[in-house]
Amino acid sequence: MKIALDAMGHDRGPAPLVAGAALALKEFSEISKLFLTGDTARLEAELAKIGCNDRRIEIVHATQVVEMGDDAAHAVRRKKDSSVSRAVDLVKLGAAEAIVSAGHTGACVTAAKVKLRTLPGIDRPGIAATMPTEKNLFVLIDAGANPDPTPQHMLTNALMGSVYSRHVLGYADPSVGLMSIGTEDEKGNDFSRQSFELLKASGLSFRGNIEGHDLFENPVEVVVADGFTGNVVLKTSEAIAGAIFGWLKHEILKSPIRKLGALLAKGAFNAIRKKTSSDEYGGMPLLGVNGVCIIAHGGAPPIAIKNAIRMAVESVRHQVNPHIVEAVQRYHEQSAPRSSAT
Amino acid sequence: MKIALDAMGHDRGPAPLVAGAALALKEFSEISKLFLTGDTARLEAELAKIGCNDRRIEIVHATQVVEMGDDAAHAVRRKKDSSVSRAVDLVKLGAAEAIVSAGHTGACVTAAKVKLRTLPGIDRPGIAATMPTEKNLFVLIDAGANPDPTPQHMLTNALMGSVYSRHVLGYADPSVGLMSIGTEDEKGNDFSRQSFELLKASGLSFRGNIEGHDLFENPVEVVVADGFTGNVVLKTSEAIAGAIFGWLKHEILKSPIRKLGALLAKGAFNAIRKKTSSDEYGGMPLLGVNGVCIIAHGGAPPIAIKNAIRMAVESVRHQVNPHIVEAVQRYHEQSAPRSSAT
Repeated sequence: MKIALDAMGHDRGPAPLVAGAALALKEFSEISKLFLTGDTARLEAELAKIGCNDRRIEIVHATQVVEMGDDAAHAVRRKKDSSVSRAVDLVKLGAAEAIVSAGHTGACVTAAKVKLRTLPGIDRPGIAATMPTEKNLFVLIDAGANPDPTPQHMLTNALMGSVYSRHVLGYADPSVGLMSIGTEDEKGNDFSRQSFELLKASGLSFRGNIEGHDLFENPVEVVVADGFTGNVVLKTSEAIAGAIFGWLKHEILKSPIRKLGALLAKGAFNAIRKKTSSDEYGGMPLLGVNGVCIIAHGGAPPIAIKNAIRMAVESVRHQVNPHIVEAVQRYHEQSAPRSSAT
Repeated sequence: MKIALDAMGHDRGPAPLVAGAALALKEFSEISKLFLTGDTARLEAELAKIGCNDRRIEIVHATQVVEMGDDAAHAVRRKKDSSVSRAVDLVKLGAAEAIVSAGHTGACVTAAKVKLRTLPGIDRPGIAATMPTEKNLFVLIDAGANPDPTPQHMLTNALMGSVYSRHVLGYADPSVGLMSIGTEDEKGNDFSRQSFELLKASGLSFRGNIEGHDLFENPVEVVVADGFTGNVVLKTSEAIAGAIFGWLKHEILKSPIRKLGALLAKGAFNAIRKKTSSDEYGGMPLLGVNGVCIIAHGGAPPIAIKNAIRMAVESVRHQVNPHIVEAVQRYHEQSAPRSSAT
């Protein structure tokens, strides 16, 4: 399997990316080639620094980097030799099967959309984030690819999220909820109410509105949100989890008895810390583009980059795209007579 | 001080409200009158059940209840004898100085807006939720009063949140952030970018966009959000905090050693649990209406109702409304020459 890693797109430069790449190569023997796109001299220096000379690494030189402050569309048009564009090009040309990027999310989404195109019936891709509940996982889609969607985009996100939930997470008939501010049908804003109507008529197992309180306690398998709200939910959840562990640590350090207690209960802490850490998931698939594209956090440590590469490997294996095309086609066939009647 | 409690608006009926009222009367001697609006027979029965015969309680009969599934505007127009409408009427007539409601948020917001009117220069009120960081507190506004705001509403929310932060939480020059999906100026969606421009020119200490990751780690004192996003942030934060403690408990119960450890570190757990519990704050002021109106959670236990009543007492004492009027006026004076020039 051949993977292309945008080896420059990271808040802290290429070092965590190169370190993550090395970890991934040690662990995943199915990777036959790992392209690192970026500045050859810098990447070679990083590889030398960690003593990695794995023959499966191939550096593809790119002279530019999309900065976090760049406008996404502008960056893709103007910085043709950026590390993220070069990584997407490798998939476009068939040299690689998947892209992994921890860089500017908007630029990666735009590059993938423009260069790989979207799947038939999909106008805009959506980022699928996997989040934990007590015993299961749910998919939050869209976690930030499309901050200004139409209700129709919300519908295709629901279809894509359901396919992902079924074929990757293994839920037979995933339930779908619409992120809102109350569980009653009429709660929400104008946009969410329009989306609600489309989801209700979608043929999916639509459970109606879901509010923040229900996400972890009375969850559905697929949570549909606009990319703005979804991104806020994802980052806020990660932030509060991190904050709680930080605050607990601070309180525990206040007394030796508490310290002893925390030591004895360490296994429990570590299990939940791991469960709530985004590093474990490492990456989020961008669903709806004609290829495999994994979005990682901009500040991801090497272990999270490794896990994002693992997700790329798994996504290539799962091949959800044909199932997405089929689900969208089926939806249009079912709803065609209804649409023409209204 | 005279307070009106909507004594029927609660997910579990009047019992937790009446119990919370009794707790509040025990604790706050400055309350000279606590009106309970709702069905007299039911409220008398609840009071008898808990043996409360405090002479400061006065039941104001109301025959109707706004149900969670009711449309807000419709409910206020049609259910004129609802417990929430009667409570707001008491403030309108000058019999009470503040309303507390744990019922249908939209109905309470609408009743307050229609009956009390908004303050001069304020078109729509906003709910101010107080949230904890490691060492401080910040105000999230709007936490759900107005799910379809205009950028101008976002600006008045920022002004109101700053006044609240200054006069109630005691921050001398509160910094303001706009809830978004990245920290760079151009990140967000069309609506947030329009709001950004207004906030930038507001004369407030505007720190730009703030994303979920920064809320608790690199916080500002006032976070401005549309009522949809704000409500999602509030409920998701509460949900993940609750979920983490639930998961930890589950992990701890797996071994006797862990149980012992948790017992020794109990003080630390309890401190953070308390810090992250919405019951501690109990209520959120609805800023921008001509009166004091405190919104409590629909599922609030008696202790949270008591704390919501405490917040009503404090809000009456703080009298932030004149400061809000002044801040809005000052903004218009400052921006008037600029506006007419553009």
